Amino acid sequence: MTGERPSLRASRAKSRGDPGRARSAYFGIDLGGTKVAVALVDEGGRVVAQGRQLIHHGAASLVLDDILACLTSVGVPRGYRPRGAGVGVAGQVRRSDGMVLYAPNLKWRNYPLGHRLRAALRLPVVVTNDVQAETYGEWHRGAGRAANDLLCVFIGTGVGGGVVTDGRLLSGAAHAFGEVGHSMLVAGGRRCHCPASGCIEAYVSGWAIAVRAQEAVRRTPELGDDLVRRAGSVEAIAADTVTEASREGDPLARQISEETAQFLGLGLAGLVNAFNPSRLVLGGGIIDHHPEYVPVVRRLVRRLAQPPAARAVRVVRSALGPDAGVIGSALLARDRKAERHP
Amino acid sequence: MTGERPSLRASRAKSRGDPGRARSAYFGIDLGGTKVAVALVDEGGRVVAQGRQLIHHGAASLVLDDILACLTSVGVPRGYRPRGAGVGVAGQVRRSDGMVLYAPNLKWRNYPLGHRLRAALRLPVVVTNDVQAETYGEWHRGAGRAANDLLCVFIGTGVGGGVVTDGRLLSGAAHAFGEVGHSMLVAGGRRCHCPASGCIEAYVSGWAIAVRAQEAVRRTPELGDDLVRRAGSVEAIAADTVTEASREGDPLARQISEETAQFLGLGLAGLVNAFNPSRLVLGGGIIDHHPEYVPVVRRLVRRLAQPPAARAVRVVRSALGPDAGVIGSALLARDRKAERHP
Repeated sequence: MTGERPSLRASRAKSRGDPGRARSAYFGIDLGGTKVAVALVDEGGRVVAQGRQLIHHGAASLVLDDILACLTSVGVPRGYRPRGAGVGVAGQVRRSDGMVLYAPNLKWRNYPLGHRLRAALRLPVVVTNDVQAETYGEWHRGAGRAANDLLCVFIGTGVGGGVVTDGRLLSGAAHAFGEVGHSMLVAGGRRCHCPASGCIEAYVSGWAIAVRAQEAVRRTPELGDDLVRRAGSVEAIAADTVTEASREGDPLARQISEETAQFLGLGLAGLVNAFNPSRLVLGGGIIDHHPEYVPVVRRLVRRLAQPPAARAVRVVRSALGPDAGVIGSALLARDRKAERHP
Repeated sequence: MTGERPSLRASRAKSRGDPGRARSAYFGIDLGGTKVAVALVDEGGRVVAQGRQLIHHGAASLVLDDILACLTSVGVPRGYRPRGAGVGVAGQVRRSDGMVLYAPNLKWRNYPLGHRLRAALRLPVVVTNDVQAETYGEWHRGAGRAANDLLCVFIGTGVGGGVVTDGRLLSGAAHAFGEVGHSMLVAGGRRCHCPASGCIEAYVSGWAIAVRAQEAVRRTPELGDDLVRRAGSVEAIAADTVTEASREGDPLARQISEETAQFLGLGLAGLVNAFNPSRLVLGGGIIDHHPEYVPVVRRLVRRLAQPPAARAVRVVRSALGPDAGVIGSALLARDRKAERHP
């Protein structure tokens, strides 16, 4: 990346003047509920430039402006020419036209993000689910490279997943293939944010860790001093509070953290049976903060999955970390014809 | 089918003499732990002739003889010419050469079934897992027809499943894609026959229903008279005992049966989230005997799965019943090139 950051339009105009030498690149956009991350990615999946910023709450058009501002601030370094843009959105997306059908964190229903971005950027745009984009990124450039049967599970605020088999990212009937966060862990167990109880997400996601920690502190207040002091109040205890306190040796936080790893391993052993992957990639914020969960999951999968499935799988940590989404989105834009996107 | 049943070899020789008029057909073989079922199936997937018989326990060569005897007894009706044979085996199979790597019920390890059958029949042979064959059958000729995203779950002695998406039966790294019987239902719950506890199979399979019923009778002997009388002893209570007693109104059997339907619905709601099918086909012996489970599952999926996944799926009963395996195996033999089998 050069020191200069020309505006998006200026750069495109400039590189148009010299198309023979400009290298193709793709914008990858990872749109979460509170922030947007953007990267310009070259044909080989390497990040050329990147940035991120908070987004406005409220009207979708303000969020669109935030995305465009973030793209402009990242810009296009000299020598590159953007050929398309890919967006991963936390929500349900109709890939055929880039319509965001439902994105609860953004409070969007039926927002034509693909259409709006195409009009603003004058580039082909691919819109997909954020977890599908992350899976695509790990598959092409990360810990899932060269895996023919890949299951990626991302444990962050929520839990999501994606599946690649025989060289294709599986979509499912509603573009939710691999949404393993809402497969069962303990039927009739903890309330989930979805209509069911006892989902994997209700035990190991960021929000679930917070709920479990708050309950543990209420149950055994004599052990909760450290967590309450760090957070300010019981209600303010978050997954991060547990991570920090656990790192510094607080026994209750350690116990909660160890239980999280166990729950995750039990759930994933069952999913290794169901999806029979050759590689299981673990990513997301919780794994980024707790890489020690990966060997725990590996051991539990080896011990509890059916022997042929257990022998066939390698359990590894995400290689792209928080960049999986922007890289995967950009590569989906690069490959949009192969993936049959418009 | 004509009244005559000429031997397999005689029929083949005869039809060879008149190849222009003979219609192509395929043997489908469904090899379980105690019996073999065989059908001759035409190009369109219709059963032309069929039969079944018990198999010997002991040496694999005796079982091979049983299969050949069953094929001969079914025979080839005049006007048909067999072009290949497909076998579905309850176990782990290497599809490339038809090696049965492990079939616990048959006590086989590394038995070259494909090779032996090819030599005996002088026909191309495809060997696959029984549940994959059943899924293939339901997809082509049964309740999964024209579904682009299909999940089949078969609840019998065990619980197995298969997945079709974008026109392909998914295989997985060890040919066990869709083995949903060993995804979690209640982590840390009932002992399963596999290395884990709390799998779906440990709650709703035939053996699990028997175990649950025996436990219920021991727990509340005053309610167990009917079940014990039918079976002869507590240890002899089987899933069939529960089915019969439940049909005739025994309250304990009814309760066990209703709990089975609930467990099944909870587990399948999670699997609908994970696999996002457009159609969920329920089959296997337990469903054949309890078709009333299908609407219970349908309601629970609608209520508990994530709304987009719940809206996308139709929950239906297997259309082929116990014939799914023989029809699917025969069609896998028909399509072996498309499926890249030798």
